[in-house]
Amino acid sequence: MFLSYRSKYAQNPIEEDDMLAERLAREGRNIIKLNRGDPPVYFTTPEYILNAYIEALKAGKTTYANAVGIPELREAIRLRYKRKYRLDASPDSVIVTQGVSEGLSFLNNSLINDGESAILFKPYYPIYVPSLNLAGGKEILERYEESKGWNVHVESLAGTLKKLKKSGKLNKVKYLLITNPNNPTGTVLRRDVLEEIVSLANEYDILLVSDEIYDEIVYNGALFTSVAEVAKGVPYVILNGASKDFDATGFRLGFALIPGEDNKSAELRSKFADFARVRLSANVPAQYAFAEAITNSAEHEKSITKMVKEIETRVNFAANLIKENPYMSIVKPNSAFYLFPKVDLKSLKFNSDKEFVDQLLMQEGIQITRGSGFGSPSHIRIVSLPPKEILADAITKINEFCRKSAGAKSRK
Amino acid sequence: MFLSYRSKYAQNPIEEDDMLAERLAREGRNIIKLNRGDPPVYFTTPEYILNAYIEALKAGKTTYANAVGIPELREAIRLRYKRKYRLDASPDSVIVTQGVSEGLSFLNNSLINDGESAILFKPYYPIYVPSLNLAGGKEILERYEESKGWNVHVESLAGTLKKLKKSGKLNKVKYLLITNPNNPTGTVLRRDVLEEIVSLANEYDILLVSDEIYDEIVYNGALFTSVAEVAKGVPYVILNGASKDFDATGFRLGFALIPGEDNKSAELRSKFADFARVRLSANVPAQYAFAEAITNSAEHEKSITKMVKEIETRVNFAANLIKENPYMSIVKPNSAFYLFPKVDLKSLKFNSDKEFVDQLLMQEGIQITRGSGFGSPSHIRIVSLPPKEILADAITKINEFCRKSAGAKSRK
Repeated sequence: MFLSYRSKYAQNPIEEDDMLAERLAREGRNIIKLNRGDPPVYFTTPEYILNAYIEALKAGKTTYANAVGIPELREAIRLRYKRKYRLDASPDSVIVTQGVSEGLSFLNNSLINDGESAILFKPYYPIYVPSLNLAGGKEILERYEESKGWNVHVESLAGTLKKLKKSGKLNKVKYLLITNPNNPTGTVLRRDVLEEIVSLANEYDILLVSDEIYDEIVYNGALFTSVAEVAKGVPYVILNGASKDFDATGFRLGFALIPGEDNKSAELRSKFADFARVRLSANVPAQYAFAEAITNSAEHEKSITKMVKEIETRVNFAANLIKENPYMSIVKPNSAFYLFPKVDLKSLKFNSDKEFVDQLLMQEGIQITRGSGFGSPSHIRIVSLPPKEILADAITKINEFCRKSAGAKSRK
Repeated sequence: MFLSYRSKYAQNPIEEDDMLAERLAREGRNIIKLNRGDPPVYFTTPEYILNAYIEALKAGKTTYANAVGIPELREAIRLRYKRKYRLDASPDSVIVTQGVSEGLSFLNNSLINDGESAILFKPYYPIYVPSLNLAGGKEILERYEESKGWNVHVESLAGTLKKLKKSGKLNKVKYLLITNPNNPTGTVLRRDVLEEIVSLANEYDILLVSDEIYDEIVYNGALFTSVAEVAKGVPYVILNGASKDFDATGFRLGFALIPGEDNKSAELRSKFADFARVRLSANVPAQYAFAEAITNSAEHEKSITKMVKEIETRVNFAANLIKENPYMSIVKPNSAFYLFPKVDLKSLKFNSDKEFVDQLLMQEGIQITRGSGFGSPSHIRIVSLPPKEILADAITKINEFCRKSAGAKSRK
């Protein structure tokens, strides 16, 4: 075989599904795209960030830079965690990455031997799985429980850990990864649930990884708790970046924060830095922009407050429209900008969420994402970033599409 | 063990050695840095490129984009190869990467199973080896022959391939990677040598990979031949990017060009795209800048001509100074911007090139790179990008350091 066996894991369902939509667009179809969580499409990246980017370019910041990130950015990130979460981290706790996806790659390549595993929760962000599998690992899938407002099913997690320990397989489990706030469910984990997870990670000596890329996009009165606030003495990794809170997906900048004073944290920091050196550095002028984006907290507060308020309105509006659909049920989101309703595919006479999504695209020109891409079939993900009139049009059409499908003769 | 076994391969000797210099700099030492091949440090990135970057930012090009690269950039790259090398490639032959390092990562992860291998040539660009090893592969080291002006030792390569075939191990060899023009030797492969390599790749059915990142930085009357010009009908991959020819290392943009019409090329193109989708996209505004950098060939010609002329002067000047050193011998470079002299470590009473380089740094405050990082101990690499007065000062000090070392009592 010419290609490696492992390379079959290089798959991103969200992006792959995009190809059908691209083809339709090329054929002249008008597509309403509700598939990508890409805030700057609807909220221009704040001007003070763009200005800092432009200044960096004019100042000749176009050379290589520190593999782990420019000092200004690492310091800005460190101070952000001090300010927001009262975390005292050393400056070398921060490793700047090319998006959270590179942080995941560093994580998996640093930790995973063939046949080892990591605990993920369904529904998961699609890239977690290929990143783990490409490194030779296998996912153990626990779940966010829809009936508990998509909070972690802690009893199930505790049971699984106990069983793994009993069977001697616990030492093959390298980390446990939560997404908080969550994509696709839009849930903020309850503080007590988070504390229980931290306590389990501690009891079973498993590295805790928390993807907190939406940590400022929280609304409807929800309160977000960072792992940094509760995981005292437990080794952990926080993944975050410029894409969502700072409305700059196209910069492709993320970071890993590994603040622990324990040995595991120290080994991991050093290994992440080794991996960073193998690819030299991340885009340099963008790092200056990201540093200013964080440091100028007055400007940031203005932008993020405005954006989150608008997102709150749009998500609530869209969620209320979905609630009118008798074939869907939804846990109302209080973070990020997605709807993740459960779809009664059977009544709608679809064999799968993929069929639903493909038909919706082809018949109505509306592009959403199938839940199976997140490990949760019979769900769909709808990006609720566009203005109300677009959302109104799209979701009305989705609801109408469901009514038509339910009424149609069975396809079988 | 907490870290994975494989993660030990995450090493970049050039970058790691940098840590000693950083410490000295923090202690207030003035370091002359001749260790990084970073053109924009000495030649400001051309204004027309920066302007295009700024325009892209102002136009809101800060969203996600196509995983394989924005269409404008892929088309610009395709047309560049048509213009420069008369290559007719399809638009999907180009995959934009986050530097050549990511191209290498895609290559190795696409092809290498545990225990498989690739043929590299000493001295090699340091990242080739960890990138291959991390994917589970092992390097088979052939050589560029100093006595042949650092051209590939074709007879040795032919012998190795013959032996591999005889022993049944040839099917474990996934590719053969050349660097042309070469870092660190500054050599352009002779066309007839390149043709012989292509013919061997064809005969033994091995994928040819050519890292051509310095393809426009060629001087002293040398003529560069791209694999694209001679590899008709053979599957091949060209790696290249914005860093050197376009004087924009900090953009971190590279690309892989896989133009073949054969099945292997098609499989590889599709797999590179899969890997690209797992990390979403490369920095987006920088891609617009890179597209303009290539497309505006009138402006590019002006900048590259001026830069290469200046590099030629500086490299020749530095090489002539090295020639005055009785403890060094050098093949005069005709491309890139490095000197890679052989050092008579024995006469200088050093145990290794590392000792030489560390002592030079600590005693004289001059930072260069050890040949062992490139697989060629008893050599050193000197970046010859700075202006003449800096090079004069540094190399005079290097020569004086050698005289002192040779005259000193033996350290053993």
